[in-house]
Amino acid sequence: MNAIADVQSSVDKRNMPINQVGIKNLRLPVGIVSAEGTQQTIADLTMTVALPEEQKGTHMSRFVELIQAQQCNIDFNGLRQLTEAMLQKLDATAGKISINFPFFRKKKAPVTGIASLLDYQVTLCGEIKGDDYLQSMQVIVPITSLCPCSKEISAYGAHNQRSHVTVTLSCHDQINIEDIIDIIEQQASCQLYALLKRPDEKYVTEYAYDNPKFVEDMVRDIATTLKNNEKVTTFTVESENFESIHNHSAYALIQYP
Amino acid sequence: MNAIADVQSSVDKRNMPINQVGIKNLRLPVGIVSAEGTQQTIADLTMTVALPEEQKGTHMSRFVELIQAQQCNIDFNGLRQLTEAMLQKLDATAGKISINFPFFRKKKAPVTGIASLLDYQVTLCGEIKGDDYLQSMQVIVPITSLCPCSKEISAYGAHNQRSHVTVTLSCHDQINIEDIIDIIEQQASCQLYALLKRPDEKYVTEYAYDNPKFVEDMVRDIATTLKNNEKVTTFTVESENFESIHNHSAYALIQYP
Amino acid sequence: MNAIADVQSSVDKRNMPINQVGIKNLRLPVGIVSAEGTQQTIADLTMTVALPEEQKGTHMSRFVELIQAQQCNIDFNGLRQLTEAMLQKLDATAGKISINFPFFRKKKAPVTGIASLLDYQVTLCGEIKGDDYLQSMQVIVPITSLCPCSKEISAYGAHNQRSHVTVTLSCHDQINIEDIIDIIEQQASCQLYALLKRPDEKYVTEYAYDNPKFVEDMVRDIATTLKNNEKVTTFTVESENFESIHNHSAYALIQYP
Amino acid sequence: MNAIADVQSSVDKRNMPINQVGIKNLRLPVGIVSAEGTQQTIADLTMTVALPEEQKGTHMSRFVELIQAQQCNIDFNGLRQLTEAMLQKLDATAGKISINFPFFRKKKAPVTGIASLLDYQVTLCGEIKGDDYLQSMQVIVPITSLCPCSKEISAYGAHNQRSHVTVTLSCHDQINIEDIIDIIEQQASCQLYALLKRPDEKYVTEYAYDNPKFVEDMVRDIATTLKNNEKVTTFTVESENFESIHNHSAYALIQYP
Repeated sequence: MNAIADVQSSVDKRNMPINQVGIKNLRLPVGIVSAEGTQQTIADLTMTVALPEEQKGTHMSRFVELIQAQQCNIDFNGLRQLTEAMLQKLDATAGKISINFPFFRKKKAPVTGIASLLDYQVTLCGEIKGDDYLQSMQVIVPITSLCPCSKEISAYGAHNQRSHVTVTLSCHDQINIEDIIDIIEQQASCQLYALLKRPDEKYVTEYAYDNPKFVEDMVRDIATTLKNNEKVTTFTVESENFESIHNHSAYALIQYP
Repeated sequence: MNAIADVQSSVDKRNMPINQVGIKNLRLPVGIVSAEGTQQTIADLTMTVALPEEQKGTHMSRFVELIQAQQCNIDFNGLRQLTEAMLQKLDATAGKISINFPFFRKKKAPVTGIASLLDYQVTLCGEIKGDDYLQSMQVIVPITSLCPCSKEISAYGAHNQRSHVTVTLSCHDQINIEDIIDIIEQQASCQLYALLKRPDEKYVTEYAYDNPKFVEDMVRDIATTLKNNEKVTTFTVESENFESIHNHSAYALIQYP
Repeated sequence: MNAIADVQSSVDKRNMPINQVGIKNLRLPVGIVSAEGTQQTIADLTMTVALPEEQKGTHMSRFVELIQAQQCNIDFNGLRQLTEAMLQKLDATAGKISINFPFFRKKKAPVTGIASLLDYQVTLCGEIKGDDYLQSMQVIVPITSLCPCSKEISAYGAHNQRSHVTVTLSCHDQINIEDIIDIIEQQASCQLYALLKRPDEKYVTEYAYDNPKFVEDMVRDIATTLKNNEKVTTFTVESENFESIHNHSAYALIQYP
Repeated sequence: MNAIADVQSSVDKRNMPINQVGIKNLRLPVGIVSAEGTQQTIADLTMTVALPEEQKGTHMSRFVELIQAQQCNIDFNGLRQLTEAMLQKLDATAGKISINFPFFRKKKAPVTGIASLLDYQVTLCGEIKGDDYLQSMQVIVPITSLCPCSKEISAYGAHNQRSHVTVTLSCHDQINIEDIIDIIEQQASCQLYALLKRPDEKYVTEYAYDNPKFVEDMVRDIATTLKNNEKVTTFTVESENFESIHNHSAYALIQYP
């Protein structure tokens, strides 16, 4: 074994530090701890550390070794410990772990109350820079948007469509994924459900027609709520409406501050 | 140069012919000839030949050589010549070329008449098997679908969304891409446009509300029209509705005969 | 509730049966039972039934109701029961369920023996047509392919790359996902691992160089093994090599019989 | 026409300006002017403007109107004029146009000199903020990377694979797309070609083996060159290696300054 050269550990003379180096798109089963319990899901992981200018290479296998040995379920606290463990294992002073996964919530249909699971796409991110720990979260929520202009100018009907609202935020306190989903769904023309019986379908159709929103309204109303959330430090909110009358999207973004 | 071994031409003893071997996902600019003229677009090409059991390998570079030397614009006739040239160059008795590309049509908005380009995804496919030449086409057309059930049960409004209708057909005669697009768009709750001014938006909103269609209706109405088209030998028609009230699709398929 | 019309149950007069109608791309957590145990993963589901010509529409919510109520873990037997339950619930004589999911196996590195999980993409499919039940499986296995021509003609080195081998088979008996993965990995220039230490990396590098395979060899060697498997009724095997020296793929397919 | 309400122009009272609002993923044929000539390609466009807090909505159709009327071929100067025209048409003080497209170059095989086209993915971006005009470019170049560790520790062979190098830069002067591609390809273990005959394949195999590079080397060597380019103001360089021995990527990023 001693005979196998450790090329990565030799000295580098290009005078060029690297901001991030590591592994990308490693898929693994993970347990995610959230307000409503723990769920088993499949994550796509990116793990990187900063590399000082004098070091030729990082040790790629150590990232995999660390995450494969990970036994516990993950929340913001677990992610912090994992990020710290990565820096120690890689002998680094800065680094970042990003975990992207489908997340499920049991929702009750608005009239019949029948329960079903709806899927969201979530990313949790932990980053250490010197003495600072930065935690961030991205949640993509599918919703219905109904166009106020189309409703106003038409004798009947109004075009509506599925939209993706994406909130990306950094927070100094632990924030529940469910809270961010709630904030977004409450501002939608209507929220989505996997399972709707006829009385529910009547309800969501009329609810959306009663709550028309431009893509501009959607990001403004969500931004107003997030701005008042004391746990949220910075955020961007985006809405992409997959227009039912066009083959392109309507899009808006607010960045705060 | 003589010293460089031609490994692919050696004899194979596994007694196992190969149905298709060649190159996949080669991107190239191509000119497509259609009823409304010639357009420059970017194609994704797959080119394969059958390999008899005694031959170890095909010559991958010859596929690329052939298509890179291709100077002419492509229609069904051009595709046939290209497929024949491929078989000759590769010394094969069967083979297939598949060309997938975005296709554009200039459309006039329904009230103001303002023109704009709409994009479709099209695949042309030419295949030789012994003495037979088979030509096929796939067209994916984005449309609006509006739910009849939602309209019927609701006091006002109706959920609608963008849908993809996919027609895949084989034909013994040359068929225009534009004719298939027309057949699909005429059966939609409403067709799409890149550019709509307010009077147009009023029109398409009301038009869709006046023409509700289930995913079942969409495939049935298009299949009925295609069945009566003498140039069409076989076809499948699919509709996928990206439901605005769910995070999954409604889907239907008819295969004929 | 009685006042809410059931539009889907009205009579259709277009004389056009539908081969498949239902829901597509519904994401759900599922438990998959395989030879090496049960694993929790996230599935993408498509569920469809045939619709006779006289029936206007299917009942989309019943598909979701059925699958959301599903409590058990799934193997080929569970899938059959689920497909039968779907036909009963939808009052249909033909139908199909397709479950696509990432699947994980614990693998030991070839020299150090360190264990890590590798991910594969698998689809299980159950279909009822009249009295027949057809079960099929698709497994996509990432492997290393090393080019024999490049090795032969070069003074040193040989281009190699990640490839995807896809086996799609129908079987009259239950087949383990792991068995199909084994068949594919044994024929690769080298199999993949998530975690390799330096002695392992030396091993896989030399192993691949000792086992060069054309894309043609890969599909032939796997087809030869599958042909002799008594449980397998029909199969196709494809290999797509993401060539390290080109920006397109080398591709081959064998269909049997 | 007068009767059709202009909902978007009403006054908004939420006190919340919007950073970007407009259209996303509009596909259109465009001509791109570059150092080696003009090429027709297919672009994916995103066009947005800033919206002040008192304005309820933007006019989505005007973006489409502007770009559909665009007759000229696009380079950095054309993009600036287009961005200025957008701000004027939308009555905005800030805005951004992003054009993403496949870009082709004719390359000669290293030994035989046979020419073929290779495809790259490029984004040009023009942004106006008050009095400032910012122009940026992103180029994704597919290359071969060969692992120095694998070469060093193995008796023969070395794992190599296709990698994507992504350079994203802002510049105060016009920069040619071709110059950035050249910088990246010169630092690769080897560059890619669509068409290679056997003597070329021998050449690229040996060339890559003679030029092993870690993902860290790749970003460092490209960053060193870009740092010395006087036209480049800021840049990030990323490399993602689709490892042939793993099912995940090795990844590195340098941001400058």
